Amino acid sequence: MLKKRYLLTPGPTPVPPESLLAMAKPIIHHRTKEFRAILAEATEGLKYVYQTKSDVLIFASSGTGAMESAVCNLLSKGDKVIAVSGGKFGERWGEICEVYGVNARIIDVEWGKAVDPAVIENELEKDSEIKAVFTTLCETSTGVRTDIKALAEITKGHQAVLVVDAISAVGAEGLKTDEWGVDVVVAGSQKGLMIPPGLAFVSLSEKAYKLTGASDLPKYYFDIKKAKKSIEKGDTPYTPAVNLVVGLVEALRLIKDEGIENVISRHRLLAEATREAVKALGLELLAPESPSCVVTAVKLPEAIDGVELVKKLRSKYDVWAAGGQADLKGKIIRIAHLGYMNCFDTIVGISALEMTLREMGYKFELGAGVKKAEEILAG
Amino acid sequence: MLKKRYLLTPGPTPVPPESLLAMAKPIIHHRTKEFRAILAEATEGLKYVYQTKSDVLIFASSGTGAMESAVCNLLSKGDKVIAVSGGKFGERWGEICEVYGVNARIIDVEWGKAVDPAVIENELEKDSEIKAVFTTLCETSTGVRTDIKALAEITKGHQAVLVVDAISAVGAEGLKTDEWGVDVVVAGSQKGLMIPPGLAFVSLSEKAYKLTGASDLPKYYFDIKKAKKSIEKGDTPYTPAVNLVVGLVEALRLIKDEGIENVISRHRLLAEATREAVKALGLELLAPESPSCVVTAVKLPEAIDGVELVKKLRSKYDVWAAGGQADLKGKIIRIAHLGYMNCFDTIVGISALEMTLREMGYKFELGAGVKKAEEILAG
Repeated sequence: MLKKRYLLTPGPTPVPPESLLAMAKPIIHHRTKEFRAILAEATEGLKYVYQTKSDVLIFASSGTGAMESAVCNLLSKGDKVIAVSGGKFGERWGEICEVYGVNARIIDVEWGKAVDPAVIENELEKDSEIKAVFTTLCETSTGVRTDIKALAEITKGHQAVLVVDAISAVGAEGLKTDEWGVDVVVAGSQKGLMIPPGLAFVSLSEKAYKLTGASDLPKYYFDIKKAKKSIEKGDTPYTPAVNLVVGLVEALRLIKDEGIENVISRHRLLAEATREAVKALGLELLAPESPSCVVTAVKLPEAIDGVELVKKLRSKYDVWAAGGQADLKGKIIRIAHLGYMNCFDTIVGISALEMTLREMGYKFELGAGVKKAEEILAG
Repeated sequence: MLKKRYLLTPGPTPVPPESLLAMAKPIIHHRTKEFRAILAEATEGLKYVYQTKSDVLIFASSGTGAMESAVCNLLSKGDKVIAVSGGKFGERWGEICEVYGVNARIIDVEWGKAVDPAVIENELEKDSEIKAVFTTLCETSTGVRTDIKALAEITKGHQAVLVVDAISAVGAEGLKTDEWGVDVVVAGSQKGLMIPPGLAFVSLSEKAYKLTGASDLPKYYFDIKKAKKSIEKGDTPYTPAVNLVVGLVEALRLIKDEGIENVISRHRLLAEATREAVKALGLELLAPESPSCVVTAVKLPEAIDGVELVKKLRSKYDVWAAGGQADLKGKIIRIAHLGYMNCFDTIVGISALEMTLREMGYKFELGAGVKKAEEILAG
């Protein structure tokens, strides 16, 4: 069978033709009025998606670079912080803190569950020296959504800032940065923002930015103060990834045209259709209580090897779902509904899953998943 | 809902990225060694797809131009021919003949039915002066496949040449030009050959080429003798559509890589899945006896307005099926499985049809079509 690639991974995600075409144009120089206009439009567009009035800084790096920038710009050696860890990406906050000698208390959450905001409140009440709470909006390894609004409600009353890894969630999950009072939001380019990997973003509230003055940790490339001063003059401290920014502007225009609330509703609908479809196939969700609308993690029956399933989906149908990580390896499949995706990407994902599960001997009613998805998607 | 375009029309058809990228490259001059190599590869590739040893001539025109070339290069004023008409495209042969003063006996076939080869045999037996039989491999307006092998078997024993409009069928339907003894095969670029409209192709057997010597009809741009002499020197008489030829070479490489027999089997499988899926929705086929694997024409229930259905599929889902033409307007929908299409294009088409039919109040078991398609496609 002729293959076309269907990228249903939680990053990278499909890039819209508008961005692809813009990125294919001849490169321009970055120290020009022309590029400054593009950069200004990108920054404005990011503020719209973030729903913030603060500047959103752009780094040429992966999302992890912007995570690191939050740690090394806001904190000093020995500072006490809380890091929520309920999956592979939550763990990363702890790892970065460790490298910089930041004293992180790790809140371990069962993979597949969201952190209980009361736990964080309790920690902050117990220790008034805690300077930051690090957490993850969508934990991509498990498909769990954290209640960021509730956490922001809590950190507001304390000295601690709330730092959110929203790398996979910006442009997909509801996130009202200013209204909720989220201090730091980190994002990446290859997820809901729909362009290839290579750009990372970070926004800071005034409360967070104040911390940059006292921080004694080393930083050069990821220096937030320097980046903020530059962007206020419409510039970047170092060479920006020009064609990615050009592609980003096009993607942001698409988001603006659709409307951020509609973009989020679309993700919610595709996620719901995916969840109900896999349940109709007799499968269980890994995170039924707090599912994200970025990616759906599906538990597989004992008899089905998840590594094999993911491999077969790729080799036979060129449908790219993700498998499980760490302890979940082989036990789950993760299907994204992230970024430049519509109802038929979901239909294709479910249909490919049905055909492959049947081939692997799993017993279920063929077509039941697509039927359920159609019911939800047709509205 | 975010829209992506799904082109399920029987031309234009989706263009593979390999061709799109090649056509986006800077234009080259056509009177160069570089372009001559490209043209030579295109001609060789076309011969592979046509399954012929004869040259396949390339015109910068739509398919109709190549149809006209067959009439005005092979015949003379007043010549007697047979033209089979069982749909909108079959009618065209008669129209072209009329313009040139060729005496065409029109064999009218009910739309949705294929011509009975015995009828043609009878006509040729009755009148030995008939010089050509004009017919259509896939009648795109009805989705009917003509038995070209049987017709070639008949014309072999007569002076008449068999001229086949295979515009929508080359690279999709089985067609063994030399083995079957088909004298003239006309094709277009925007169908099974997977590139945008703008190129037309024609092959001629020795028997057909001999007729060009006697023809007294006027021709200049579509002069086959001139085109054949040029291609023998690796050239074209007039400016070729350079970037379309560049795109064609890429498309032909894809066909060669997949293998022409596999390409045809793929079309056959997608067509079968589509037919069985719509039957599972309680719908009837327009051409159940001789369905082509290019496009499937589906009869609609009285209560469903086909014009409205096609419009809704486009406006709500950006899924482009075709409606009916002439007397069939509003009464059928035509779903193509032509060119750069795979199993998920078929799934998307059926799924969009199901969701739209439901919205329009048609009663059926949602998901039944996709289920049937999956059964066939999963193999």
